[in-house]
Amino acid sequence: MFTVQQHDATMPARAGMLKTVHGTIETPAFMPVGSLGTVKGIDPDELQSCGYGLILGNAYHLYLRPGHTLIAEQGGLHRFMQWPGAILTDSGGFQMVSLADLCRITEDGVGFKSHLDGSWHQLTPELCMDIQVALGSDIMMMLDHCPPYPSTESQAREALERTTRWAHRCLAVPRQDHQLLFGIIQGGVFPHLRQEAASQLLELEFDGYALGGLSLGEEKATMFQIIQDVTAKLPLDRPRYLMGVGLPEDLVEGVCRGVDMFDCVIPTRHGRTGWLFTSFGRVLIKKAQYARDEGPIDPDCACPVCQRYSRAYLRHLFVSNEMLGVRLNTLHNLWYYGTLMSKIRNAIRHGQLQEFRTQFYQARDPHGQDVSSDTVCV
Amino acid sequence: MFTVQQHDATMPARAGMLKTVHGTIETPAFMPVGSLGTVKGIDPDELQSCGYGLILGNAYHLYLRPGHTLIAEQGGLHRFMQWPGAILTDSGGFQMVSLADLCRITEDGVGFKSHLDGSWHQLTPELCMDIQVALGSDIMMMLDHCPPYPSTESQAREALERTTRWAHRCLAVPRQDHQLLFGIIQGGVFPHLRQEAASQLLELEFDGYALGGLSLGEEKATMFQIIQDVTAKLPLDRPRYLMGVGLPEDLVEGVCRGVDMFDCVIPTRHGRTGWLFTSFGRVLIKKAQYARDEGPIDPDCACPVCQRYSRAYLRHLFVSNEMLGVRLNTLHNLWYYGTLMSKIRNAIRHGQLQEFRTQFYQARDPHGQDVSSDTVCV
Repeated sequence: MFTVQQHDATMPARAGMLKTVHGTIETPAFMPVGSLGTVKGIDPDELQSCGYGLILGNAYHLYLRPGHTLIAEQGGLHRFMQWPGAILTDSGGFQMVSLADLCRITEDGVGFKSHLDGSWHQLTPELCMDIQVALGSDIMMMLDHCPPYPSTESQAREALERTTRWAHRCLAVPRQDHQLLFGIIQGGVFPHLRQEAASQLLELEFDGYALGGLSLGEEKATMFQIIQDVTAKLPLDRPRYLMGVGLPEDLVEGVCRGVDMFDCVIPTRHGRTGWLFTSFGRVLIKKAQYARDEGPIDPDCACPVCQRYSRAYLRHLFVSNEMLGVRLNTLHNLWYYGTLMSKIRNAIRHGQLQEFRTQFYQARDPHGQDVSSDTVCV
Repeated sequence: MFTVQQHDATMPARAGMLKTVHGTIETPAFMPVGSLGTVKGIDPDELQSCGYGLILGNAYHLYLRPGHTLIAEQGGLHRFMQWPGAILTDSGGFQMVSLADLCRITEDGVGFKSHLDGSWHQLTPELCMDIQVALGSDIMMMLDHCPPYPSTESQAREALERTTRWAHRCLAVPRQDHQLLFGIIQGGVFPHLRQEAASQLLELEFDGYALGGLSLGEEKATMFQIIQDVTAKLPLDRPRYLMGVGLPEDLVEGVCRGVDMFDCVIPTRHGRTGWLFTSFGRVLIKKAQYARDEGPIDPDCACPVCQRYSRAYLRHLFVSNEMLGVRLNTLHNLWYYGTLMSKIRNAIRHGQLQEFRTQFYQARDPHGQDVSSDTVCV
């Protein structure tokens, strides 16, 4: 189901194909986040036009609303949301900890108070699998115990060991033949714990491996070191998925360290706040300097927004809190991310990843005011 | 610029063509409201797919934000919002009274405190014309004095007489050759004042006549009687525009009484609140009865929403406060209104308006729970 077609000569980066019953996805790939059965404001045709064949759903959110049994009755999540491509569902372990009003993690699973109505729920590894089977996910994620950042070493160890025990339980739950299941490697910011977590999961029969618990506030350099060390340990023939990451530069750096899949709310959420991505850095559309700017967001962008609308109009929509602005900003950002991944894949296939990476950073003017403030340790 | 092509045999209804430099519009026509330079959540292609060639802008809103001079610098409102069709701009007299924090009407014009930042502005009939000239409107509306409902006869008389004096001032302002200017007939709910207002405006050179100050809370029967009486007095060769009206049944009844043009926020605003229009009455999508309903909003609707999505999914989006739901609901409602007007025009052209009207009401189940509660005096 996963084949690597091209390895980079000098870095662990690779280009491959991930087969699902809802289409084959070229990797490295970015997955837009559609937690509640919709990528906010964007329809399936638009997602496809941006080059996406795989998007994210969320078991926690869909379990609470509208309920996984309801979605199963409606023919599964693909049919419910009319998405013809593939779907990876996150287990929701992270959301329970971050969103729920109250959350108690025991050996049995995660008990939490719904952020919607305060009702009490207990999500076990088994229920979490059942939910994702009911949704009809192409790629299911195991329920993991994601420790907060910062955590002590003993907290991180407890979480990773529990994650391994839950991994066994998740694998024991029957799923449909075509449904892939990925394990999640925890271990906080402790290199030896990450190695331990990877070793334990590698003994099990997962279809792919995710790195969880990153981009939670640790230094970028720490994150990239962990990614590099962990992917070095993972089998070459299984996809690696870096969860919840990140900015464009994080995708470039993740790929260079052997990551195949990414998801993040950044292109959609930042779009809603008027933070637009371009090859030359970010454009904060609310700025007064764009009030009379007749040009597109990015003159080099071929997206339907840049082909049609001026910065002046987009700024007006943003300042006026108009929904069309949110929609257009989101569409542009998703197009940017989709195109970025396409360029990365092409660079790998042509043996030019390092050149691409250099150009990627050169295109950003370090003296310009619009370059992202998050500098990256390359 | 306006030609009536077909008169109904038994009612004052007519089908015609309104020519603008941005296209010819078949009448009777409904105009979606895009006060701030966008029909909320909907893009120009979608508006055209719903059959619209003429939409509404608002001088008050655009004067305050982003400013009419800015829009003029950007090549006018059509180019700014990338709308290839025609635009009618309302003068904003009604919005100043209803939205501004404070509003003082004098002979000079309307003084008001911006609802955005509390700044003080004075909008004269002349400035109001200048704004609409700057925007590049195809159809401009005169600044009128719209009395609130209820008003005393003397208040209504004062407003209509001032409106007539302002009409003279608006007509005296130079505008581009292709820009049409419509007069607005006031007079409250007093039949003789409406007649007086119409008489006064008919002596002037307006390209069309609007009925203002209706649907403000008066009885439907009162409104329809006024419409009927006023249109009977208007020249056959000028378009008649009923401002701010209304529900589907109001459009049918308005057409039967000789109205050619309508605008209203109902399809867009109701869409945002989950009130969906169908041939059999309204669907309130939030209702629990739709939670597992696999059918479309309206089985007889050819819109992209009904062709693709289930009521269950739309309800989920609505209940989850998801932006895609607002967008899809709005698109469906605009399609419904566009299709309704198309059916009305066809009925007039084929001499079957009365049959259409009968079927329109028969299709609604009076015993069903989903029929609009606003019953209409036919």
